[in-house]
Amino acid sequence: MKLKVKILGLEAEKPVVVINKSDAEEIDVRPLDRVDMTTGRRKGTAIVNVATHFIRPGEIGLYSEIADHMKAANNETIDVLPSNPPSSLIHIREKLAGKPLDEKGMRKIVEDAVARKLSDIEMTAFVTALYNHGMTTTEVAALSKSMAFTGKTLDLGKKEIFDKHSIGGVPGDKTSMMLVPIIGAAGLTIPKTSSRAITSPAGTADRFECLAPVDLKLEEIKAVVKKVNACLVWGGAVDLAPADDLFIKIEYPLSIDPLLLPSVMSKKKAVGAKYLVIDIPTGEGTKIKSTKEAEVLAEKFIALGKSLGIKTVGASTFGEQPIGHAIGPALEAREALSTLMDGKGPADVVDKVTNVAGMLLDFKLRKGGKQEALRILKTGKAYKKLREIIEAQGGNPDIKPDDLALGAKRIELKSSVSGVVSWIDNRAIVEVARAAGTPKDRGSGIYIHKKMGDSVKKGDTLLEIYAEKEYKLERALKITKEVRVMGIGKKVDMLLEKIPRMVEHPKYFILER
Amino acid sequence: MKLKVKILGLEAEKPVVVINKSDAEEIDVRPLDRVDMTTGRRKGTAIVNVATHFIRPGEIGLYSEIADHMKAANNETIDVLPSNPPSSLIHIREKLAGKPLDEKGMRKIVEDAVARKLSDIEMTAFVTALYNHGMTTTEVAALSKSMAFTGKTLDLGKKEIFDKHSIGGVPGDKTSMMLVPIIGAAGLTIPKTSSRAITSPAGTADRFECLAPVDLKLEEIKAVVKKVNACLVWGGAVDLAPADDLFIKIEYPLSIDPLLLPSVMSKKKAVGAKYLVIDIPTGEGTKIKSTKEAEVLAEKFIALGKSLGIKTVGASTFGEQPIGHAIGPALEAREALSTLMDGKGPADVVDKVTNVAGMLLDFKLRKGGKQEALRILKTGKAYKKLREIIEAQGGNPDIKPDDLALGAKRIELKSSVSGVVSWIDNRAIVEVARAAGTPKDRGSGIYIHKKMGDSVKKGDTLLEIYAEKEYKLERALKITKEVRVMGIGKKVDMLLEKIPRMVEHPKYFILER
Repeated sequence: MKLKVKILGLEAEKPVVVINKSDAEEIDVRPLDRVDMTTGRRKGTAIVNVATHFIRPGEIGLYSEIADHMKAANNETIDVLPSNPPSSLIHIREKLAGKPLDEKGMRKIVEDAVARKLSDIEMTAFVTALYNHGMTTTEVAALSKSMAFTGKTLDLGKKEIFDKHSIGGVPGDKTSMMLVPIIGAAGLTIPKTSSRAITSPAGTADRFECLAPVDLKLEEIKAVVKKVNACLVWGGAVDLAPADDLFIKIEYPLSIDPLLLPSVMSKKKAVGAKYLVIDIPTGEGTKIKSTKEAEVLAEKFIALGKSLGIKTVGASTFGEQPIGHAIGPALEAREALSTLMDGKGPADVVDKVTNVAGMLLDFKLRKGGKQEALRILKTGKAYKKLREIIEAQGGNPDIKPDDLALGAKRIELKSSVSGVVSWIDNRAIVEVARAAGTPKDRGSGIYIHKKMGDSVKKGDTLLEIYAEKEYKLERALKITKEVRVMGIGKKVDMLLEKIPRMVEHPKYFILER
Repeated sequence: MKLKVKILGLEAEKPVVVINKSDAEEIDVRPLDRVDMTTGRRKGTAIVNVATHFIRPGEIGLYSEIADHMKAANNETIDVLPSNPPSSLIHIREKLAGKPLDEKGMRKIVEDAVARKLSDIEMTAFVTALYNHGMTTTEVAALSKSMAFTGKTLDLGKKEIFDKHSIGGVPGDKTSMMLVPIIGAAGLTIPKTSSRAITSPAGTADRFECLAPVDLKLEEIKAVVKKVNACLVWGGAVDLAPADDLFIKIEYPLSIDPLLLPSVMSKKKAVGAKYLVIDIPTGEGTKIKSTKEAEVLAEKFIALGKSLGIKTVGASTFGEQPIGHAIGPALEAREALSTLMDGKGPADVVDKVTNVAGMLLDFKLRKGGKQEALRILKTGKAYKKLREIIEAQGGNPDIKPDDLALGAKRIELKSSVSGVVSWIDNRAIVEVARAAGTPKDRGSGIYIHKKMGDSVKKGDTLLEIYAEKEYKLERALKITKEVRVMGIGKKVDMLLEKIPRMVEHPKYFILER
């Protein structure tokens, strides 16, 4: 059927066309069916929406994505025919029915997802089927590989790529920002790609962007890493494992995460990682509640790593309170920068980063990695490497913590009682920080003055909230009155119940196969 | 946040707004999150799409549905805030995790679905969760009731409503069109709502529309039934159990049907049915392959009917070949009309309709229903009732079979061998009929001259294809060359293998609790 193009100027993030109901009936397609389109120059496939008024019979409305792909112009004639359903639909239905998929089926699904050939309904059916039926080891590996190889890959022509990933869940975790310079300073290659915050107050990309540009293209990343053997960039600017973002869009509203392992490992595979440490923040208020649970997850990462040719270790780290004092992009960047400059900083920050970096160094040193990481930090070698990375990515290497602007609206929360901090609620901290404007308002966030185990006198400042806008500060303040952010216990209570937790240092274990 | 309205004139079948990426970040909403909107006059909730170019910062694009609901005008200012997720999302996540839902949870989901508060992702998660985890008897009843009572209901002020439903799957099944006049002529009340074809060549609404209007409003249906105690209308024109259509939209592309029972029974509940017969076409080439399978399904319908206060019987009917000779709206309407006029017609058509109608009559007569149905048909009482229904619905009661126009493009398929018809492939018949233009082109379809067990001589016409357009006839013809529509066996083969099937009459069984 020949239809006249009407460019809609609307974005759908997938190829969508709108045709009139009568034309849809004429070629026997229903909403969400697909049509094949042909002009003299181009071919394409799109998902059909049906309109009764907005698009007249004989017209076809094109969303931006498909209009660009077809290089279509207004009033041009385009040939439209019903298309066969994407072949991956058969495999989605198989998985939905509980049948494990082979590598070919898995790959076809990922290819069609990346080509935006699948509707939200089909994508959701796939993601919920994975959630319901789980995946065999073979399936996880096939999915990870498919996700890695349907996008671009970073080829650094070196064999020894080191990498690190945190499954997240603890606020204020600026580990990567400090670990990368340490590993780089040790002479190892670590092309670190990171995400921006989705539901947290800051992602590594948001933090590091306070120091240097992070949205580098693949060729630029290559150049940076060749020069200084490390980088800290935003993964979203490059097309590494692009299927991941599409699956996350489905998982997020449903609060399910069946693709956690392939999501992480496909990106690592795409940058050519050979050695990897997975940080698993553990404890109440994080995603993983116990070291037992962390161990199970780590073993899965290790097994998957093995089938992908990535030597993997897992670290279960203490996550029941924020890492360090600072939460929010600029605040965290300040804390990380001054720790690297001074060679010292908050005890938990230094302990965590040297432990996790040490596990990576141990791949080469066999042991003593933590001490070596600490030495690199203390001697200023890590800071030197940080300056190199900042400069290579186009930032100013002389940047100082005070150069990073904080929100001008500020309020201090003071304690109304004396005692000892017995707990800090990660989720409440995140909620307050988001209300204050994180991650968008870079200078907003929270500075925690008192952490678990710290003594508090009545009137002491417990935390400060920073915001760039007055209404956001008020919004954040309102939340601190609705949810409890921290608990102050009597000393005697603490001694009885809380000391094991208070004096507990971050716990690590190494799993290796 | 205050934004300026831009009416998009686009239909989404759900409330969708488009805002600029920077504004979305400002109020901390992501694509597919929801926002609450307020003007001086109205409040509303919509699903967020995000644009980078099409909608500028400070603007909000409104799709037609939400623009109408908000009574919004271009350039008007509207207040926009992130909204809490719909409360049913909790229940969808519970079901997704395998937890059975209680009546309240089920009802909340259906309410939010009908209010268009759920995205495709959330709707799909619910439907696939039902598919994966199944439903308890309590859940099926709760879902059916929720679906029935979130729409309009037909209140006829009578206690004794009779109804009939076929789960479909066999082409050419014009049973309802003939059963309704028979039941009506017996003095019973049968307000029959039917669907249009989705994937079949004709639905009852498509067939009957050749004789009289079927898109009556609820008050019109009431008036018709009060006058002639029967009707044959399209269910889609009235708002009976509207959730059903929304769920079907999800099920269709995935080829799954976990809501079959609530889908059927909610509509029956909404018209106040007290006595119901479920026709289950059975055999190869239908949805239900064996009488054993049919029995299991019938028992589920009967149990559900019991908890809804609907006395239900199930009929497993022979479905391995089309019913009668005619396939396609006008062709089928002709066959049904002439059978009712003459009091006789194709043996399988008459046998099926009198059997199924008899089961309904038996609710009152206890036995002998089939003979009574046959008597009503043969004495012309059914035809008299048909005329009354046609007239009451606004059609011409004097309409004759020849008045129904058939497609002018016609081709006969002749047999190249002699023998006996050993099988007819329902799916192939459907594919050819759809290609010929059914259901949209009312006069298109297939007339089958030779059915299973019929003797065929070389050169005999096996079937005719009717189309309204030349290219559709060619398309249909092409398919007959690609797929086998019927098989002609040697007589001796038939005697050995096929006779049990050939001489088999439609089989019925009655299940009752």
